[in-house]
Amino acid sequence: MRRRASSEPRTAITHSTTVRVRFDECDPLGIVWHGNYIRYFEDGREAFGREHGISYLSQQEQGYASPIVRMECDHQLPLKYGDVATINVWFCDSPAAKMIFEYEVMDPQGKVACTGRSVQVFVFTGGDLALTAPEKFLEWKRKMGLLNG
Amino acid sequence: MRRRASSEPRTAITHSTTVRVRFDECDPLGIVWHGNYIRYFEDGREAFGREHGISYLSQQEQGYASPIVRMECDHQLPLKYGDVATINVWFCDSPAAKMIFEYEVMDPQGKVACTGRSVQVFVFTGGDLALTAPEKFLEWKRKMGLLNG
Amino acid sequence: MRRRASSEPRTAITHSTTVRVRFDECDPLGIVWHGNYIRYFEDGREAFGREHGISYLSQQEQGYASPIVRMECDHQLPLKYGDVATINVWFCDSPAAKMIFEYEVMDPQGKVACTGRSVQVFVFTGGDLALTAPEKFLEWKRKMGLLNG
Amino acid sequence: MRRRASSEPRTAITHSTTVRVRFDECDPLGIVWHGNYIRYFEDGREAFGREHGISYLSQQEQGYASPIVRMECDHQLPLKYGDVATINVWFCDSPAAKMIFEYEVMDPQGKVACTGRSVQVFVFTGGDLALTAPEKFLEWKRKMGLLNG
Repeated sequence: MRRRASSEPRTAITHSTTVRVRFDECDPLGIVWHGNYIRYFEDGREAFGREHGISYLSQQEQGYASPIVRMECDHQLPLKYGDVATINVWFCDSPAAKMIFEYEVMDPQGKVACTGRSVQVFVFTGGDLALTAPEKFLEWKRKMGLLNG
Repeated sequence: MRRRASSEPRTAITHSTTVRVRFDECDPLGIVWHGNYIRYFEDGREAFGREHGISYLSQQEQGYASPIVRMECDHQLPLKYGDVATINVWFCDSPAAKMIFEYEVMDPQGKVACTGRSVQVFVFTGGDLALTAPEKFLEWKRKMGLLNG
Repeated sequence: MRRRASSEPRTAITHSTTVRVRFDECDPLGIVWHGNYIRYFEDGREAFGREHGISYLSQQEQGYASPIVRMECDHQLPLKYGDVATINVWFCDSPAAKMIFEYEVMDPQGKVACTGRSVQVFVFTGGDLALTAPEKFLEWKRKMGLLNG
Repeated sequence: MRRRASSEPRTAITHSTTVRVRFDECDPLGIVWHGNYIRYFEDGREAFGREHGISYLSQQEQGYASPIVRMECDHQLPLKYGDVATINVWFCDSPAAKMIFEYEVMDPQGKVACTGRSVQVFVFTGGDLALTAPEKFLEWKRKMGLLNG
């Protein structure tokens, strides 16, 4: 993955989870179909959310959603049926009203199969874009040491 | 597919549609993964609904949903990536508060790849089972000549 | 699920695994889309295969495959996003050259969400149907106490 | 989508196709799950390939594959169940041994729902990266007026 400008640096807030590659996630070439890595990223991001207290579910309860507005994915090595892959997720800090994550999917030998990056914005339940981050998210950032005050 | 008892006979109300097999719907054996036929059945049932005026969407507007409670699928020949398959759907008449469809997926050579049968019940928006069919559905059956009165 | 005739009885050879419901496996009604239970059945069957030494992978190495020729699925209660479901799988004994499994998917409260049954036959790598079960499968049945000799 | 540097400009070689949004492609928010746009891109790219004579299938016959090594996706508006979306695909010219496509998914009102960009490289059947583009691809570029000679 192309390295980002320093305005949205990867933080030390991270989480790892594993996923077992399903038979139906592999294509006629015998490898994981490229679009399925988006699922693995989501598996990683949700596990991160459960670990660090910032999950989809809790957000919907608080009157907003956080749709993904940009996704990037770089494929380096294929995963195969039955592989148990490790998904590493990092929270990237941004001054904007955004949530940014970076991803790394490792094959069973510990080699990088795929990296990625997602950008989420905040929208109110009605669908309008939130121009400032929700208070709960700011609280979370304070708790994680990413914001003062 | 095992033939059904005559209490839920296949009617002459039918519809055909086509679907092109996607690359990611095929598995490492190079053929459509068995679970993906459920999608093709749904493609066929929805095309039937659009043709005959009994779609998912219109049902949700009328305060009820019609979840699938039973699905059967018999696989006879594989479909491959790039195949354009034909999906034939028949409405099966039942005296009960149910919607029953039978399916036939044909390969490009006109051979039967897969047959199936689904059973749907009616539930109110709150989730409770409707013990009698919704009036709109009975109206539809009258219009199609399946009910008198 | 309708109970089967006794010629293919459920054995005591069973396995349980769990699966976490993904966000993208749920539909606009907020529940697992019915076709996705076929994946959970496969998750269960593969975990069974790893536990009891009869997996897809090892079969492909031995020159045959075991495609699913029939699938039945009965839906009783919905699963929702984030649910951790339990999948119970039983091997059903058949005198024919078939592998038959029964499935039970339990919701987090231990209620039955869905049951199912799959029938697999054996085909040689070239695609021809095997009229007798492969020796490796008979060996496995002997090891599990399902065959004498 | 961020505009690209001029070394890989969008050409006038383009194709449009349509896709009907499936029920199971929508998530509990009632909109297409973000990862499913990768499928729509593939639908568009394959329709492009059939139209312009450069499909997956024909490539595999010629001893190489063209795996996707990078994918970008920018989400602007949601698609909903039942929408018939239009997928526009452009071939982008690159001096490197790569195939680059840009995508635009339009909602039924003609507004941009999503844009994207994919990069494919060429690998030989054995898996090794091809450092020069296959002759068939160069022939195709000549035929399309993108290469002299």
